[in-house]
Amino acid sequence: MSDFTPTDRTQVKRLPKRGKYDAETVYKILDEAFVCHVGFVADGQPYVIPTNFGRVGDTLYLHGSAASRMLRSLSEGIPVCVTVTLVDGLVLARSAFHHSVNYRSVVILGTAKLVEDPSEKMEALRLFTEHIMRGRWDEIRWPNEQEMKGTTVLALPLEEVSAKVRVGGPVDDEEDYSLPVWAGVLPLNITTTTPVPDTRLKQGTPVPSYISSYKRS
Amino acid sequence: MSDFTPTDRTQVKRLPKRGKYDAETVYKILDEAFVCHVGFVADGQPYVIPTNFGRVGDTLYLHGSAASRMLRSLSEGIPVCVTVTLVDGLVLARSAFHHSVNYRSVVILGTAKLVEDPSEKMEALRLFTEHIMRGRWDEIRWPNEQEMKGTTVLALPLEEVSAKVRVGGPVDDEEDYSLPVWAGVLPLNITTTTPVPDTRLKQGTPVPSYISSYKRS
Repeated sequence: MSDFTPTDRTQVKRLPKRGKYDAETVYKILDEAFVCHVGFVADGQPYVIPTNFGRVGDTLYLHGSAASRMLRSLSEGIPVCVTVTLVDGLVLARSAFHHSVNYRSVVILGTAKLVEDPSEKMEALRLFTEHIMRGRWDEIRWPNEQEMKGTTVLALPLEEVSAKVRVGGPVDDEEDYSLPVWAGVLPLNITTTTPVPDTRLKQGTPVPSYISSYKRS
Repeated sequence: MSDFTPTDRTQVKRLPKRGKYDAETVYKILDEAFVCHVGFVADGQPYVIPTNFGRVGDTLYLHGSAASRMLRSLSEGIPVCVTVTLVDGLVLARSAFHHSVNYRSVVILGTAKLVEDPSEKMEALRLFTEHIMRGRWDEIRWPNEQEMKGTTVLALPLEEVSAKVRVGGPVDDEEDYSLPVWAGVLPLNITTTTPVPDTRLKQGTPVPSYISSYKRS
């Protein structure tokens, strides 16, 4: 696991203290998030599309229908930016100006490649499922040939990557500390509620423990 | 509140049933999210940056330091895409292929304009605070002249906009319904834990009810 070297395009310039380039921080953020935002350009217009992803080592996988415009455009090797953001808390300062959000984000720049090797493609499909729910893959029906054909998988190497992290409480101007205003952080978490069985679920099918005891971070 | 007319660029082409263009759906998604992802192009490279925002009527406001590269680029009137995504649940099907996520997203295309009128700018700053925590603005110190100068505010008109929404349980292939696999939805929510007071909070400052009883949706 080697760390990332900031480039002129990924170095965090505003508030450089928040910039992180170590692989451990980057991977942890990527593995905790459900969704990434994929940015690409078509006819001079940027588009930002939310989608699921998977990661193994220093490769991020994207996928979608073979009919998807986005996947088709990206597979032609155009520049892409993939961004992942986790919001951890609301930072409530004494002044409006110093209000903030505690967050962890990763920005990846590069070009994606079509995955054509069937075993790499199947492994990526396993990663997509396991990324949202570890333990799920071993229980379900795996993709058949037709489904494999209908799915495009792209691989984006994690090379030009940076993370940005804000933690901790508000930082107010000295003269504002005397104001009679509550200040601090309201922590935010992603939590689950009771699993909702499918209307056609066979009676008596137990909820697997990887669902009932699901925890994200 | 008038609805949006899908354009060739915003019409949802894959799974068109998920496309929504009514203002009520769009505004509800925007108002529930904490963070938007702003996409823009610099030197041919797309960038996707997470940031806070505010909305009133059919205007979305973005802000940041006057020194921010992103804000400077956007204020020149280059094309922008702002995307907001909420993840509502994990959709667990009997086959890997039909796994999905319940989500609500909004994609906005357009160009942003610098807000120079001081009263519109102050109103936007109020919106940023109230967007993350309603009730907060009336208690805190408002931006002074120097802070106003140091903050760039951009207005993006909500004109070319679409939403995409997936709800409900998994849809499996007919022959998979007999598999002995639990299927359904694991709902996800954003919840808060106990507010963490700032280390320099004056003893005895009560937690306002808009914080202690905070609910997002």
